[in-house]
Amino acid sequence: MTSAPSDTQNTLRAGIIELAFGEPDPALLAVGLVRRAAAAVLDDSGPAALAYGSPEGPQALRDEIARRIAAREGRACTAAEVLVSGGNSQSLGQVLTILTAPGDVVLVESPTYNLALGIMRDHPVEVVGVPLDDEGLRLGALHAALEQLRAAGKRARLLYTIPTFHNPAGVCLSRTRRQELVAIAAERDLVVVEDDVYRELAYEGEAPAALWNPDGGACVVRLGSFSKTLAPGLRVGWINASCGLLERLAAAGVLESGGCVSQLAASIVGRLLAGGGYDRHVAELRRTYASRRDALAAALREHLPAGCSFTTPAGGFFIWLTLPPGLLATALLPVAEAHGVAFAPGAGFCSDGDDRSLRLAFSLYDERTLEEGARRLGTAVTAAQAGRA
Amino acid sequence: MTSAPSDTQNTLRAGIIELAFGEPDPALLAVGLVRRAAAAVLDDSGPAALAYGSPEGPQALRDEIARRIAAREGRACTAAEVLVSGGNSQSLGQVLTILTAPGDVVLVESPTYNLALGIMRDHPVEVVGVPLDDEGLRLGALHAALEQLRAAGKRARLLYTIPTFHNPAGVCLSRTRRQELVAIAAERDLVVVEDDVYRELAYEGEAPAALWNPDGGACVVRLGSFSKTLAPGLRVGWINASCGLLERLAAAGVLESGGCVSQLAASIVGRLLAGGGYDRHVAELRRTYASRRDALAAALREHLPAGCSFTTPAGGFFIWLTLPPGLLATALLPVAEAHGVAFAPGAGFCSDGDDRSLRLAFSLYDERTLEEGARRLGTAVTAAQAGRA
Repeated sequence: MTSAPSDTQNTLRAGIIELAFGEPDPALLAVGLVRRAAAAVLDDSGPAALAYGSPEGPQALRDEIARRIAAREGRACTAAEVLVSGGNSQSLGQVLTILTAPGDVVLVESPTYNLALGIMRDHPVEVVGVPLDDEGLRLGALHAALEQLRAAGKRARLLYTIPTFHNPAGVCLSRTRRQELVAIAAERDLVVVEDDVYRELAYEGEAPAALWNPDGGACVVRLGSFSKTLAPGLRVGWINASCGLLERLAAAGVLESGGCVSQLAASIVGRLLAGGGYDRHVAELRRTYASRRDALAAALREHLPAGCSFTTPAGGFFIWLTLPPGLLATALLPVAEAHGVAFAPGAGFCSDGDDRSLRLAFSLYDERTLEEGARRLGTAVTAAQAGRA
Repeated sequence: MTSAPSDTQNTLRAGIIELAFGEPDPALLAVGLVRRAAAAVLDDSGPAALAYGSPEGPQALRDEIARRIAAREGRACTAAEVLVSGGNSQSLGQVLTILTAPGDVVLVESPTYNLALGIMRDHPVEVVGVPLDDEGLRLGALHAALEQLRAAGKRARLLYTIPTFHNPAGVCLSRTRRQELVAIAAERDLVVVEDDVYRELAYEGEAPAALWNPDGGACVVRLGSFSKTLAPGLRVGWINASCGLLERLAAAGVLESGGCVSQLAASIVGRLLAGGGYDRHVAELRRTYASRRDALAAALREHLPAGCSFTTPAGGFFIWLTLPPGLLATALLPVAEAHGVAFAPGAGFCSDGDDRSLRLAFSLYDERTLEEGARRLGTAVTAAQAGRA
């Protein structure tokens, strides 16, 4: 990790290893690829890349995304199933705007991506959490929640889920549960919003098949992104859905008025994907992040006191660490910061405020720094336990 | 106007002069400026431009926007009053998401920007139109609408207005009414959303002072954009508001999660503004579009039959033409298309469906083509009148 860039979302603090930030290492961003693609796009088709784009996004990018899905996910896919987006945060906001009505219930995993909860807070919906285990969303608990809502006369409209390389929990929804979940959603008229942002960052073979699939995915809206693989600052992603849902999303007033939400950046990404550089870049990222994951996991095993447990994820950016009984993450944080390491306390990710766990990101630092972070964290946990004793 | 670029919002039809499209001529987009700025940004600060941006946007762009406002609008302005946006369509959507509650009333001018109505349609608000005249929004009618809503127990939360170089009506809100409007809004706790997208394109001296002003603009959210001056495909604009409102908009969950909605493009615009090329480009646009406006207005005076009247706007892209009594724009459109010219019928802009007027854009074509379009339109109006007689 190089020095903190200015103008960016998170500011690093001197002397603290910031394991809270779930963002790519700036040194791994695809600056050169974007630089060359931007020049080529502006030279060859500048006016088209700088005009109002079609609501669905540049055809070349939609074709490349469809081609890539067909090649890597083993399913037919055409550009008609691809809507270019401004990244998954904007996509989630737009899905809430277009597909929910005031008072609707949005189901989320607990824990879930903390900042998705902030996006939902801006919409007049009620958020209800459903617990996870090591195989992902617990479907018995989902069933119970749906029954309870039905009895209360409430409409569960959306389920927001991160089935693959979960943020923060690091787990994957099992294959059996994937099939069952899609069946439940179809039966209950529930739209599943599948946040699939980490799919490309798989460290143990390929990622599990998406919920969005030709056999039973008619109720699934899958959100894909180039933020973790190319660069977050592009603000380019896409939405896959069956045509009925995708047409509703593409007919949004914001797109009718402003056109493609990221026309220039989307044109750049389209150019870049066509060149093959993307695949090589992703392959390198997988090797790099897998090595960082291994380094952090090994150092945690070495340095954490007894009573801690954690996931070792098969992809993505995060290790989810559960503290010894009685120790809460929010209470641990100032102790950890005093020892020169920070993390994201679990309470922010859990709809019920459960604070027994915490999230560590291994994306931002090299192996040596991650090892030092784990050492400091182990010392902090021991100190906090001693302080409580 | 060059040939129709692919991948863009509007497709030109062979043989038809498309005066419906309110977009910049692709030949006038700042391709060279953007090309150079993009290369400079990616060379000098690539990782920062490609990381998650701060929710408020790049500091350099916010500073440049504030400096430009201070220099050109005769008011103090600091970066704390500037939130970088993804263009005015996204800004309006975000303002509706953050500042309205279900059931709120949003007041609009009638006529108003037609696609703003599409953005509002996606939110659970009620839209109420207030008529315009040659001096802009009629404040007596606004007062009456507010009284009626109050009596009905409804909350008027926002007023969406285009006071400067109105789309579609071509008028400007008078100075007296500007002061009165801000006073009414303050008294009624009404947030005024000032769509100021055409401010830079002033053809008769400088544009009138914005509603957003230090003396009485605490209830105004001003939406600015680079879409008409640099390029729509950048999707970069900004929001000015007093700190209380701006803080609420900047705290949106989408920005907290995804960072600046247009980090790369905003970094490019920041670089470009600092260089001075922007001012020269805007000065050239003013000359070009003024000449096109003059050409279209002169040709309309020459070719339209008696009974037509139209505005000659002091800025912006649009002439608003009112047809002879009894002739409706939607009925005229197929006749006009058969004669090789198209326009935007008034009904789409008016909350009450009033269809006696139509909008002509002079932004997309050169003078000769505009003259030919006016000639065809005149012939079509005469033919439609004869057909009715």
